[in-house]
Amino acid sequence: MKAVFFGSGNLATHLSLALQAKGVEIVQVYSRTRSNARILAEALNSNYTSDLAEIDKSADIYFYALKDSYFLKLLERYELPDAIHVHTAGSISMNYFKGRAANYGVFYPLQTFSKKKEIDFSKIPVCIEASSPEVQEKLTELAGLLTPKVYNISSEQRKKLHLAAVFACNFTNYMYDIAYEILEDAGLGFEIIQPLINETAEKVKTIVPYEAQTGPAVRFDETTISRHLTLLRRSYDLRKIYRLLSKSIYKRHK
Amino acid sequence: MKAVFFGSGNLATHLSLALQAKGVEIVQVYSRTRSNARILAEALNSNYTSDLAEIDKSADIYFYALKDSYFLKLLERYELPDAIHVHTAGSISMNYFKGRAANYGVFYPLQTFSKKKEIDFSKIPVCIEASSPEVQEKLTELAGLLTPKVYNISSEQRKKLHLAAVFACNFTNYMYDIAYEILEDAGLGFEIIQPLINETAEKVKTIVPYEAQTGPAVRFDETTISRHLTLLRRSYDLRKIYRLLSKSIYKRHK
Repeated sequence: MKAVFFGSGNLATHLSLALQAKGVEIVQVYSRTRSNARILAEALNSNYTSDLAEIDKSADIYFYALKDSYFLKLLERYELPDAIHVHTAGSISMNYFKGRAANYGVFYPLQTFSKKKEIDFSKIPVCIEASSPEVQEKLTELAGLLTPKVYNISSEQRKKLHLAAVFACNFTNYMYDIAYEILEDAGLGFEIIQPLINETAEKVKTIVPYEAQTGPAVRFDETTISRHLTLLRRSYDLRKIYRLLSKSIYKRHK
Repeated sequence: MKAVFFGSGNLATHLSLALQAKGVEIVQVYSRTRSNARILAEALNSNYTSDLAEIDKSADIYFYALKDSYFLKLLERYELPDAIHVHTAGSISMNYFKGRAANYGVFYPLQTFSKKKEIDFSKIPVCIEASSPEVQEKLTELAGLLTPKVYNISSEQRKKLHLAAVFACNFTNYMYDIAYEILEDAGLGFEIIQPLINETAEKVKTIVPYEAQTGPAVRFDETTISRHLTLLRRSYDLRKIYRLLSKSIYKRHK
């Protein structure tokens, strides 16, 4: 199977390398920025281009792992070769391909990718959506090369899944970031809190998050809450976040 | 070594059972609520009471694992036996014992405890503070029975550590809770997002949270952000949380 990759960011990099490792031939990488296309193409030992007119038309499948707004612009400016076309975005409906390609779908790995961090794809759910049963079968097979966790997810579900992921990953990481800053201010290293971070993530495997909730907000411990707000006196933003989340937790549990 | 436990909540339960398993003799459990004292005492095969006048005075160490406000009230109403007295609270200064006991300290396990979930104490940091080098040595030894991760932490540091833990654990769990609700609304099970939760927690072992930040807020992807706010239209609170956290992430990274 031959594939072309649009994009050279974190997701494009991890996904193309993982597919190549499973025998998919990545023939070309496209990026608006020629030097970025080249870096990924060198890792894959493939061709690369930053010119839409030069897109290789011989591939079986085209992956679009681009920033959402750029992906939508690109679709307007380029005639899609006769093949399967899939995007990898959480928030974009499959139907943007309609009328532009006969066979299309979505190939959405639910994970957070950083260039510096290796990823074990076998633990990552891949969410599939397809324009026909035939395409669905092909995408399921392709995803199955990477992981046993293949889900059929509609565009509507995927949008909500992506929103849930913003809370469970992006906002959660920001909570870690704030904790990091507070510890640094106390002259403490981040590693002291790592076991707590792990246990918090582990716990919700066996207890639903609602029941796992602990802390001053859920028991409405005003003394502790006001002490914490005093400690945060130098940061208006953090006080606002602390107050809003505490109030919201309390409301949910009272 | 003989110990008395004040409290019968999650922390008191896990800690007393773990210490008993390492050979500490728990002679008595106190709780305001007699039936709660009894439940824990039965698990420990120890005595119990809900009457401060009946506190066993023969113990070597007294643990106070109580709600903060109740602990402070209790100190006023009760004469401390001649022994070591330690509380287990994140936000309370060691000095509340001053003038009431000769030997005292803090024994603060940095973890989230739920009654339903077993805890492996060997992975939990225990933060120690003591009124004298002798008490410090004893507490370090005691903590060392449970875990290799024993830290000497001052009251000032511990307050900040506890605040950091509210972000890294309590608020993080609330992010999971919100994700759970969104997935439920989409007809999806929570297990689809578990690998993402794990990876988010794992990632910050090798990359600092600031660098690990991903998502629409950090790249200021307005299209996605406004789509997400539309999906959250039915909940004023969640929209407010989404907006505040996104804005704050963006400000931190721009």
